Amino acid sequence: MKNENGHEDLNVHLKKEIFNTVTVVGVGLISGSFALALKEKKIAKHIIGVSKTDGTSQKALELGIIDEALPLREAVQKSEFIYVAIPVNVTIPVVLEILDIINDKQIVADAGSTKFALSEAVKNHPMRKHFISTHPMWGTEYSGPEAAVHGAFAGRACVICDVERSDEKAVKIVEDIYRRFGMNIVFMDSENHDVHAAYVSHISHITSFALANTVLEKEKEEEAIFELSGGGFESTVRLAKSAASMWVPVFMQNRENVLDVLNEHITQLRKFKASLEKENVAFLTELIENANKIRKIIK
Amino acid sequence: MKNENGHEDLNVHLKKEIFNTVTVVGVGLISGSFALALKEKKIAKHIIGVSKTDGTSQKALELGIIDEALPLREAVQKSEFIYVAIPVNVTIPVVLEILDIINDKQIVADAGSTKFALSEAVKNHPMRKHFISTHPMWGTEYSGPEAAVHGAFAGRACVICDVERSDEKAVKIVEDIYRRFGMNIVFMDSENHDVHAAYVSHISHITSFALANTVLEKEKEEEAIFELSGGGFESTVRLAKSAASMWVPVFMQNRENVLDVLNEHITQLRKFKASLEKENVAFLTELIENANKIRKIIK
Repeated sequence: MKNENGHEDLNVHLKKEIFNTVTVVGVGLISGSFALALKEKKIAKHIIGVSKTDGTSQKALELGIIDEALPLREAVQKSEFIYVAIPVNVTIPVVLEILDIINDKQIVADAGSTKFALSEAVKNHPMRKHFISTHPMWGTEYSGPEAAVHGAFAGRACVICDVERSDEKAVKIVEDIYRRFGMNIVFMDSENHDVHAAYVSHISHITSFALANTVLEKEKEEEAIFELSGGGFESTVRLAKSAASMWVPVFMQNRENVLDVLNEHITQLRKFKASLEKENVAFLTELIENANKIRKIIK
Repeated sequence: MKNENGHEDLNVHLKKEIFNTVTVVGVGLISGSFALALKEKKIAKHIIGVSKTDGTSQKALELGIIDEALPLREAVQKSEFIYVAIPVNVTIPVVLEILDIINDKQIVADAGSTKFALSEAVKNHPMRKHFISTHPMWGTEYSGPEAAVHGAFAGRACVICDVERSDEKAVKIVEDIYRRFGMNIVFMDSENHDVHAAYVSHISHITSFALANTVLEKEKEEEAIFELSGGGFESTVRLAKSAASMWVPVFMQNRENVLDVLNEHITQLRKFKASLEKENVAFLTELIENANKIRKIIK
C-alpha cells in the first residue's frame, strides 16, 4: 500500500537494506566495480548487466561481475534499483529512457563525472524524484569489465547532487550504499560539482594527455622514455591512458569550467617559463614554494 | 702494490665486493635510502654521513641510517667509497673538493638529476677517473632522513654517464652496487641524459607544480579540494610537494632543455584549449587518442 506521496515502497528497501535485483547499465570500470561491491556488501542478490556490446556483457558474465545480461527495458522491469555508469553524453538519453519506464517502486542513480547538463535534462521529468545524481570520485585509467576491481570506492568521496530534487528516502538508500562501500558523502548542487570537478579531476586529465603528447612529439627515442620513466613521469602521465570515449563527453559537457581552469593552468606554466627564461631564481623558488602549499591539502 | 695505471686497489674492492667504510654526503631521501640499501645488501660495513645540519645527521643516526656523523674531510679520509646525493648546485663544489683530497684507492659517485654541468666542471680534474657520474631514477616527493626507505631503487633505471672518462674498474664497482639494488643500468653521455631527463622527469615536476598553483589560485574552497581529491588529482599533483631546494637547481642547470619541453607542453595544452573553444570533438578525440599511445611505452 502506498502512502500519499507514493513512497512507502522505498521504506521497504530501507528496512530490509537489500535489493533482490539491481541493474547496472554499462559493465565497465565503474559499473563493474559497483556491481562487485554490491555483492560483496550483500546489498543485492541478483545483478543484471546492460551493455550495447554483447562481447562486453559476455565478458562481465564470465568474470562473475553480473549474473545476467539483458537489454535495457527488460533489465529495468526486473530491478528495484538501476545504476547507470556509461559515458556522460549517453547517460542523459539513457536516464531519461529509464525514467520513462520505471514505476513508483524503483530508484535510478548515475555515476557520471559531470552533473549539470544531466540535471537540466531530467529536471522536469515526472519521475525526477526517483533519480539520484551521484559522482563517486574513484577511477583508474583502465576501462571495460576487466578493469572492474574489488574494494573500489573505499575511502574516497562521493558527491550526491541536487538532493532536494530527489525523494528523501531514495537519497538515504543510495547514500547508505555508498557509505557501506566506505565512501564519504559530499552534498553539492550540480553547478558547483562541475566547477570543483574541473579543478580536482578534469584538468589533471588534460594535463596528463598533453604531457603524453609533449613527450611523444619531442622524444622520438621511445626506448629512452621506457627505460627512464621512473623519474616522476609515470604518475603524472598515468591518466593519459584514459579512454577518449569517456573523457571527450566529460570535457564537452564541462567545457566552460574546463576552459577556465585550463587558461589558468597555461598562465601558471608561463610563469615557470618566464622564471627560467629570465633565470630568475627567486621567482622560480617562490612558484615552487607556493605549489608546496598543496601539502596542507593533499595528504 | 699498484699496477701501471695505479688501479690495483680497485681490483681489491671488486674481489671482496664489499667496502669497509662508505661516506654518504647528504643524509636525505636518496643518500639515506642508498645507505640503507648498502647495509641491506651487505655492501658496506660502516657508513659515515655528512650533513651541513647537525640536526639532520643526528636524526639519521637515530634512524639507524648512518653509523657515524663526521665533517666532510674527515669522512672522506676514512672511506673507500664516497657517494654524493645533495642538491645539484652544491654537488659541483662538493665533488671537486672531494676529488682534491682523495687518494688513488678511493671512488666517488654522485646521484644528481642533472649531469652535463657537473661533467663539464670535473672534466679536467686530475682525479676525474675516480669519479662516476650516476643518476638513479628513483625518488619520492619527500625529503630529509625520515624520507629514506628500505628497498628503494629496485626495478628502476640508473643512468651512468660518460663512462669513458672514468676508470673502468671503478665503473664496474658502482654498476655492481646499483645492480645489486635491482636497478637496470643505462649508459648515456651527460648531454643526452639531460635532454631525456627533461622529458621523463623535469617537465612532470613543472606540470605538477603549475597544477598545484592553478588549483590553489582558483579553487579557494580548500575543503572542496581536500574532499574531492580522489579524481585523478592526487597522482598528478603529488610531485608538487617536492622541495624547491632540490628542484630549483635542477631546473636552472637544465634550463635550455626544460624550456624546450615546457614550450612544447604549452603548445600541446593550447591544442586542447582550441579544440574546446571550437567545440571540435573530432580534434579533441584525436588529441586524446594520440596521448593514449603512451600505453605502449608505460606499462
